[in-house]
Amino acid sequence: RSSRVRQPKMSENGLMSRAKVLTIDTMNPTVKKVEYAVRGPIVQRAVELERELSEGMKKPFVEVIRANIGDAHAMGQQPITFFRQVLALCSYPELLNDSTFPEDAKSRAHRILQSCGGNSMGSYSASQGIDSVRQDVARYIERRDGGVSCDPDDIYLTTGASDGIVTMLKLLMCGEGAARTGVMISIPQYPLYSAALAELGAVQINYYLNEENCWSLDITELQRALDEARLHCNPRALCIINPGNPTGQVQSRECIEDVIRFAAKERLFLMADEVYQDNVYADGCQFHSFKKVLFEMGPEYSNTVELASFHSTSKCYMGECGFRGGYMEIINMDDDVKAQLTKLVSVRLCPPVPGQALMDLVVNPPQPGEPSYDNFIKERTATLSVLAEKAKLTEQVLNTVQGISCNPVQGAMYSFPRITIPKKAIEEALQPDMFYCMKMLEETGICLVPGSGFGQKEGTYHFRMTILPPTDKLQILLNKVKEFHQKFTQQYS
Amino acid sequence: RSSRVRQPKMSENGLMSRAKVLTIDTMNPTVKKVEYAVRGPIVQRAVELERELSEGMKKPFVEVIRANIGDAHAMGQQPITFFRQVLALCSYPELLNDSTFPEDAKSRAHRILQSCGGNSMGSYSASQGIDSVRQDVARYIERRDGGVSCDPDDIYLTTGASDGIVTMLKLLMCGEGAARTGVMISIPQYPLYSAALAELGAVQINYYLNEENCWSLDITELQRALDEARLHCNPRALCIINPGNPTGQVQSRECIEDVIRFAAKERLFLMADEVYQDNVYADGCQFHSFKKVLFEMGPEYSNTVELASFHSTSKCYMGECGFRGGYMEIINMDDDVKAQLTKLVSVRLCPPVPGQALMDLVVNPPQPGEPSYDNFIKERTATLSVLAEKAKLTEQVLNTVQGISCNPVQGAMYSFPRITIPKKAIEEALQPDMFYCMKMLEETGICLVPGSGFGQKEGTYHFRMTILPPTDKLQILLNKVKEFHQKFTQQYS
Ligand SMILES: Cc1ncc(COP(=O)(O)O)c(C=O)c1O
Ligand SMILES: Cc1ncc(COP(=O)(O)O)c(C=O)c1O
Repeated sequence: RSSRVRQPKMSENGLMSRAKVLTIDTMNPTVKKVEYAVRGPIVQRAVELERELSEGMKKPFVEVIRANIGDAHAMGQQPITFFRQVLALCSYPELLNDSTFPEDAKSRAHRILQSCGGNSMGSYSASQGIDSVRQDVARYIERRDGGVSCDPDDIYLTTGASDGIVTMLKLLMCGEGAARTGVMISIPQYPLYSAALAELGAVQINYYLNEENCWSLDITELQRALDEARLHCNPRALCIINPGNPTGQVQSRECIEDVIRFAAKERLFLMADEVYQDNVYADGCQFHSFKKVLFEMGPEYSNTVELASFHSTSKCYMGECGFRGGYMEIINMDDDVKAQLTKLVSVRLCPPVPGQALMDLVVNPPQPGEPSYDNFIKERTATLSVLAEKAKLTEQVLNTVQGISCNPVQGAMYSFPRITIPKKAIEEALQPDMFYCMKMLEETGICLVPGSGFGQKEGTYHFRMTILPPTDKLQILLNKVKEFHQKFTQQYS
Repeated sequence: RSSRVRQPKMSENGLMSRAKVLTIDTMNPTVKKVEYAVRGPIVQRAVELERELSEGMKKPFVEVIRANIGDAHAMGQQPITFFRQVLALCSYPELLNDSTFPEDAKSRAHRILQSCGGNSMGSYSASQGIDSVRQDVARYIERRDGGVSCDPDDIYLTTGASDGIVTMLKLLMCGEGAARTGVMISIPQYPLYSAALAELGAVQINYYLNEENCWSLDITELQRALDEARLHCNPRALCIINPGNPTGQVQSRECIEDVIRFAAKERLFLMADEVYQDNVYADGCQFHSFKKVLFEMGPEYSNTVELASFHSTSKCYMGECGFRGGYMEIINMDDDVKAQLTKLVSVRLCPPVPGQALMDLVVNPPQPGEPSYDNFIKERTATLSVLAEKAKLTEQVLNTVQGISCNPVQGAMYSFPRITIPKKAIEEALQPDMFYCMKMLEETGICLVPGSGFGQKEGTYHFRMTILPPTDKLQILLNKVKEFHQKFTQQYS
């Protein structure tokens, strides 16, 4: 069967074959506009290469190393024992009689199961998420934010942060033509944002992070982007990723204050993507939540600025991506809109309950004095300090390469170095950074994502590389990147 | 904070409060049109009543019985032991050393973990789902359909069936005004369909099931609905739920053939919602998958008719709703469109891995000779025969009530009886069936969903009741419904 059949035609058996109902020309046009580089052509080629290797085909490398996606466990990071014990207990409550499980794991499992219909993770939960989990999330936020109060009613559990982000963007869509909703996103950005905006038919308003100043966010640039956008759409929301993906910067408190003031002045709904809130490595850097800063700026702001912030089980020290756990907190949302949000999420019934359980453990981990506390702290600290070490190593090695320059990886899980691509290569390739990354993959087995997948200033080139491979492998990988870059530069000079 | 603030005004502290960015007037208008009765006002009131009861408030009942949603575990149905053992092993692989777990559970867990990045359910899977799970799904479909071949590439794992259904509908959206996509859905329907169509801005084309003939589907009615719709939109898809929710009918093979012929003739994309494929109770009824019938109708149909069919871990004998597992199979989809579908699902990264693992167990349960086989069969048989018993009981008791008439519950998990509401009540109420169900809830604690939430012929009234409460409780519930109906009828006559 050909994919290009548009007209009825004779098929092999002599029957008329009908034109397809759903073709590339008659499918949803906004879906066609969606792009998602983190799983794009480079990654598809990496999958093919893995297959070819496994079939015994000869390659200049023995394995594909995936440094394209922030998937910690896939890179060998171990899960937190306590979390998995509780999940096993919740999955198979017979184990509550097993004396080898610690008591605090059992009591957590017991509490979670008691909040599930029929004491089973197999029941649908409330659409907004299990009550007791939302309560635990609220208490976590209060502790994190130095006592700023949090109402469990403002918490929505989600299917990963992705789900929450798309849902919030969806609510904001309104208007046509010059009144179409515009949403400000950083460039470089995490491509979920551009993909969701394309699918929703919104206007993507780019503001550029300042690479020369460690990917900082400048208010003048926000203003420039907004003013230009106002000429042709209705800008309604401002998205911030902090710590940043793909750029790894951690925002200062002052910068967050400025952003909040800007959002208030310009009447923008703030969306703060804080999935890397525990991934801060650089000396002098600290995570400040938008919620906390907003409330510390006083009632003029805390009573008015609309904010949604997002968290996830996928990142930080736990890296539990596959469970699709997450939450969003909604501040100052109009009550009628909130009712609509609650209704909207009910259509999909509920987020996965194991992911909700995991989110509960993340916000309510073992406490001092509980049997699992010491081991939990040990595991968490070990994971985070290895990540900090790898962040530094990545920056250091990359900066030794002529033609690669890399800002400090202050947080998150990625470096986004700038690469100099020789003129000849630029002339030869349609997309020079894609060309570079594809060549790197074919020659070294290293799978990176070209900067164009995240957005970059015209005429600059980057790649995104995760810092997640085990330290020894990361060292090898970085050396290979170095060699490749040197060879590539020579070849095209 | 008031939800109706549209203009800046002085707040208590004398500061200007800003008008909200996101208000009911400026939010996404299609979201406002979404309705989802299964979790609507009756259910919200049920939650309140539960709280009031727990706070010691006096009510004419001691507990709220939720017969509003197909949530088996919440109603006390027990999970399949084998499934939960494997999930516990996958969650906490240390347990693979525990001699109390059966060997077949361990080998299943081992196989699932081997297909996960880093051997962890905490890794993102491929966006389309784990390869080995898709292979197992394909083999399951081949066995189920008497050998009709199935390509794992046509399988997409999903976050519950809901996710797959919405994704397929989304792909089909195209055109404006009189060229807007129309989608045919049965009335009564499962309200996910109407909700998704409202949100996507599609035209909902209603075809009515024939209540007088056991909720059968008549092709003449399909034709009528289609012909009328063609005057004002572009009908592109036909959705069928079999076994039916809320109506409980099981379609005959002939009917399915007719539907397929109709879809071929009229060039409609078929969507077959088969989440209740194991829930068939009535003598003489049997589940026939659309895929199987399509392929048995010969190449004229099997090479051309585009079909998506949906399955889920939420229903059947397993009832594992909270895990949000599911799959869809895509037949005869244009290759370019399929590539777009694969890209689209990659934006959300992947379905929850525990749900994928569970789906794998559902399609690859213990085999004869394996240690868990006997117990698995015992548990599955027990659950399904209790459901069959409750289906019969529900029909029988409801049909003893004057003013209630109930078609046989041939399959699925619901009865959808027609109720006679006295004229006086109809005149008094805005929505007579909502009025009836709300009164029932307040007086008896029984939570049902009014027929209007699913759609019903003008001037007829129904409610949907699940057959899931434990048999003794169901008996009590049915008697209470009976009493209530008699009292209600008397009161308004
Ligand atoms: C900045 C950012 N936001 C959101 C997500 C989505 O994460 P998830 O949906 O797994 O929670 C990611 C994943 O990489 C991310 O980097
Ligand atoms: C007919 C039908 N389709 C789909 C679903 C969605 O199920 P899930 O998303 O839990 O798989 C349901 C749930 O009740 C249903 O009844």
